[in-house]
This record gives sequence, structure tokens and C-alpha cells, in this order.
Amino acid sequence: MTVVTNTHTDHFLTVAWTAKDGWLAPRISPYANLSLSPTTNVLQYASSCFEGMKLYRGYDGKLRLFRPLENCRRLLDSATRVSLPAFQPEELCTLIKKLCQIEGSRWLPKDTSRGSCLYIRPTIIGTDADLGYHVPQEALLYVVITYWPSATAATPLKLLANTQQWVRAWPGGTGAAKAAANYGPGLPAHAEAKRRGFDQILWLFGPDGIVTEAGSTNIFIVWKAPAGKVELVTPSLDGGLILPGITRRSVLELARERFSRQSAWVLDGKTVETQELTVIEREITISEILNAAKEDRLMGLFAVGTAFFVNPVSQIDTVDHSINIDPNAVPHAALLRQWLSDIMYGAEESGWTQIIDEKEG
Amino acid sequence: MTVVTNTHTDHFLTVAWTAKDGWLAPRISPYANLSLSPTTNVLQYASSCFEGMKLYRGYDGKLRLFRPLENCRRLLDSATRVSLPAFQPEELCTLIKKLCQIEGSRWLPKDTSRGSCLYIRPTIIGTDADLGYHVPQEALLYVVITYWPSATAATPLKLLANTQQWVRAWPGGTGAAKAAANYGPGLPAHAEAKRRGFDQILWLFGPDGIVTEAGSTNIFIVWKAPAGKVELVTPSLDGGLILPGITRRSVLELARERFSRQSAWVLDGKTVETQELTVIEREITISEILNAAKEDRLMGLFAVGTAFFVNPVSQIDTVDHSINIDPNAVPHAALLRQWLSDIMYGAEESGWTQIIDEKEG
Repeated sequence: MTVVTNTHTDHFLTVAWTAKDGWLAPRISPYANLSLSPTTNVLQYASSCFEGMKLYRGYDGKLRLFRPLENCRRLLDSATRVSLPAFQPEELCTLIKKLCQIEGSRWLPKDTSRGSCLYIRPTIIGTDADLGYHVPQEALLYVVITYWPSATAATPLKLLANTQQWVRAWPGGTGAAKAAANYGPGLPAHAEAKRRGFDQILWLFGPDGIVTEAGSTNIFIVWKAPAGKVELVTPSLDGGLILPGITRRSVLELARERFSRQSAWVLDGKTVETQELTVIEREITISEILNAAKEDRLMGLFAVGTAFFVNPVSQIDTVDHSINIDPNAVPHAALLRQWLSDIMYGAEESGWTQIIDEKEG
Repeated sequence: MTVVTNTHTDHFLTVAWTAKDGWLAPRISPYANLSLSPTTNVLQYASSCFEGMKLYRGYDGKLRLFRPLENCRRLLDSATRVSLPAFQPEELCTLIKKLCQIEGSRWLPKDTSRGSCLYIRPTIIGTDADLGYHVPQEALLYVVITYWPSATAATPLKLLANTQQWVRAWPGGTGAAKAAANYGPGLPAHAEAKRRGFDQILWLFGPDGIVTEAGSTNIFIVWKAPAGKVELVTPSLDGGLILPGITRRSVLELARERFSRQSAWVLDGKTVETQELTVIEREITISEILNAAKEDRLMGLFAVGTAFFVNPVSQIDTVDHSINIDPNAVPHAALLRQWLSDIMYGAEESGWTQIIDEKEG
């Protein structure tokens, strides 16, 4: 699954910062390349972090953002982790809305784009041109919007578990931040996964193969615990190895609310049932998943994130084993996808979305 | 010790690469900013690695590079680690010499710069503007030269050992590569060290406090082993946590050759003696250094690297202890500094240097 996102919108938001003067006046200007000295801090020392969000054109014709303040808060956390300057998340959120107001009407036309979205990428980079290794004394926050292919049916993902040759994150590292530095070092493993026909690396940590995250997505498992109870489990955030995903958090909140007792739902016009289950965040090892598969207790596995949304996983390969999972055995991923989609596109009222005012034109 | 290196020379070397066409023709052109899309791979995903080298104006008026092919080979290793394109190290070395030929005469004038040097920074960045997470399909290799303040007397360094809150490198990570991704995440620790009056972080690894490297320098210790034998020890490269420094390697080679038996040397016009010692690369813990200090067996400690050369360390603070080291107790650091300097500036003939041809002007 290669997502090509070359097409950007007309304008972008930039806010420059200097240690001396703090944040300067924000500008929304025509999209343009950045002019950076070859010695710029971000190019040499990876002083960079970013966010991923989407702008949704609702079925009702309204433009919405999904929990945008959460992204702005996480960007602040990421910036702090790599010594980039602090800012008010609420102010950034207001600026992003402003940009969406300008770009949304044109790039997600009200009448023809219902059910479509754009991808928003806020970024902060250290722009200090002094080659010495030091906390950048200049930085640039910018937000670009790119065209993202419309959400189609979920495509089951194949994951390749990494070997000890490559590790994504570690205690005291940047695994919990959306830092650029997490990504470049992951490229050789990602490339190997692609070469071998997989979509993403499933990053395991340590000799016990602790499941952390897959590519840029968080992992959820539906299984029967050995004692027979159905559980929805996801790796806990303790230890700082995993990005605290906003989709992850939303899935946890929805699942705790809706899957905690046996229920019937309508999905694509059909009635589906979900059993009572317990939602658990805890450390999970790949052996547990393997054992659950062997003992026929593994019911479903899915990956969630802003970019890839909610996607069932159909296969996980480790060095020794291949785990195959029927992506349609349980409806949890499809239900969550539907519920989140309904919220994002305004089919369901929710405090999670914020409507962008548009000038009548 | 803040080294300001804003001043660059007139020209820089650029070589563009695309997956389709490979490396394009190298260009030496007037120094200029790079024009990069806000979505460029290096800005978002830290696909970047670099090298540090120096161009020396010898006491004999000749321009020299020190083991330049080693830097070019290490850049290839670093590039491979973050999925940037491969190249012939020999070809890069030739190009760097060409750039030095042009810039050296002007920026290190033959008659007035003897004993001075310039700092060379080869860099490779992923320039692909597609926002999707993937191995860059476009890259740029460039080499800039900056003015580095003339080598003055060594200033003893104060090091602050990191806490488990921040960890620089991990097995399977990029600790052995000169990847940009190693540096941004180290900034908060580096800033704390500076704030508290230290020069660098001494990066310890794991619960046992394994000594890895300090800032961008490798660490050497002169001590009496508990059994009484004098040793020069440095952390081994096994485990991939440490940059395989070229100064480190040169120090090891010189030390093995010259410190293996008791000898007398002339240093700054005085005769100094060194005892017979054994040179050892192995895992070292901070407790070992602490115990050696307590038991009066710690004789000297120094940091080596291209940028900071050979510098005695006068203090290491951990959470619980402060280790003070007399930077002048043993002459090893000063001797190595002198020997390497003699080689770099042509006072001593050596196969380690390569002379840059200059047009007579």
C-alpha cells in the first residue's frame, strides 16, 4: 500500500521562531519551497517533529476536524522531546482551522467531495544554520495540506515482524514522540517488508518480542483469553515505546463504551453481533499472539492510525512463523471503522469533531 | 565550549541522485541555500547522515586531509543504515579533494594559515518530496566547508552522565552510524548538561551504566587495573552503540605502537615519561571508573574526535557521584594530541595524510 501524496493545496501556514524574539506573526501564504542553508540544524541533526490529521468533508456538506487539539498537544510533546520551541496548542489549533477554512472550500468542494478528506501535516523544524551541535535558536512551524485518496474499503494488511537487527524505539528514546528521528532509521526494515510483499513492519521490542506498533499504526487484538473470556487488547503506553495514537485512544473509548456487553449492530445493511468483551491495555508479546492463533483463540487483529484509519491485519510473519488471521471473522474493526467514519463525516453527532466555518461563496 | 561555525567558504559540492538515473554529474558551485519542499523526506523522516573531516594547512605550507577515505567509507555505512543511496567512497574522496583544492588556497592562505584548519561536512539527505513514508527516490549529497577556530591548547572537559530518562543509542539502532537521527533526540540531555555547566553528556547505556561515548567524541581511560598493570582502555565497538571514530582508531593505533613499553618523550620542550601499558577495547561501566577513582587507580581520561580533537576530561558527574580527574597527571592525551597534530600539519611524515595539489597562484 503506497500512498502517493505529492499533490498539495495552494497555501500553507508558517510561523517562524527565534530564541530572541519567540514566535513571530503567523502567515498563510502561497505554498512554496523552503530555502534552507546546507548546514541547517534539521538537515544535520534531525531536529524535527510532525503531526498527521485529516480534514473531512461531511456527508452533510460541513467541514470537520477530528480531535484537532489532541494533535496540537502531541506536537508540543514531540517538540519538547527534541528541544524544539514550545507553543500554545490552542493557538496552533486556531491557526490550523484558519488554514482549513481557506483550503477546504477549494480542495474539498462542498457538493462533490462529501465523504472525502484531505491530509494535514503540521511540522516543526530547527532552522538555525549554525553547524555546531546545539539546541536550535531558530525554528519554523509549518502546516501543509495534501490530497489523500478517498477512503475506500479497508484492505487487510500483511505485517512483517522485525528481527533484532533493527529496533524502532527503546526506553529513554523517542518512541512516544512523533519525531522525524523515529522514521529514517526504520527505512531499511520498511524496505525489506515491502520487498517481501508486506505492508508494514510490526515492531517487536526486546528478547521477549514485545509488540509495540506497526509502521505508523497502533495494534489491537481480539482474542479469547486462555480462561475463555473475550478481550480487546492493545499494547500499553507504559515504557514510552509507542506513539500515543489519537485514533488508538478514540478506539479504546468507543470500544469500552460499546463492546462491554453483548450487542447487535447494523453494518452495511446487515445485523452483526458482538460478544461481551473486556478492553485491556497491557504488555503483549508476539508469543501470546502465536499461541492464541495455535489454540484457535485469535479472533481478529487490526491496525489503527490517522493515515491508514482502521485496517484489519490478515498476516503476521516472524522469523519462524506465519500467523494468518481471517480479516472478516469478527466485525470489531469494521464496526469501529464505521463508527469513527460516521463521526468524522458528520453522520453521527460527536464532541470529537469541530466544524470549520466556511464563507458562503 | 560552544563552537560557532557560521562562516562557510565560497563554494560547495553537490551531487544529486535519483532512483531512476542514479548519481548525476557532480557540481562545485557558489555556496547557496537548498530549495526544499516542506514535505521533503529529510525534513519529515530524518533521512540524513553526515561526516566531519578537517583540511589542514601544514607547517610546511602544504594542504592535507587526514585519512579522508575512512570518512567516505563511514559515510557509505551511515547512508546504508538510513536507506540513502550507495556510492563509491573513492569517488567521493576525489571530489572532496577537488573542493579542497579550490577552497583551500583562498580560505587557508599558504603564508598566514600554517597550523590552521577548516572543517569539512559531507552530508547526504533524502530530497524526495512525496510525503508518504518510503525509501527516498531522490537524494542529494553535498559537501560544505566551514571555518573552524584554530586549535588552541586543550581545554579540559566536564561530562555529565545521562540518566535513564534519555538514552542515545540501542542495539539495532543507529548508534554506530553518523545519522542525523542520533542527534536531535540527544538535544534535551545536551541542553541540560550545558545548563549545569558541563560540556557534553557522557552517554551511559543500560542498568549497569555501560560507558559508550561523550557527545560526538570517543572516550579513553588510563588506569591501573586492580592487579596493578597500567592500561589504556576504550569502549569496544561491539554492540553497535558507538560511532567507530577515525580519531579513536588512530589513537588506538598510535597508542599500541608507542605506549606498549616504557618510554621518554619530548613534549613542549620537556622530557616526559610513559610507563608500559596495555591498550584494550572492551565494555567499561561507570562503576569501574568510579572504583578506579576511589582506589586512586584512575590516572587520566580523555575524549577524542574530529571536532574536539584530543581533550582531557577533568570531571564526570553521575546522579550520585562526582569524579574529578587531574587533566595533567599523565601525559598520554597531550602526547597523542601532539603526535596527531604533527601528522595532520605535516611535521611528521605519515601515510595517514594526503596532500592536496594546489595551483601555484
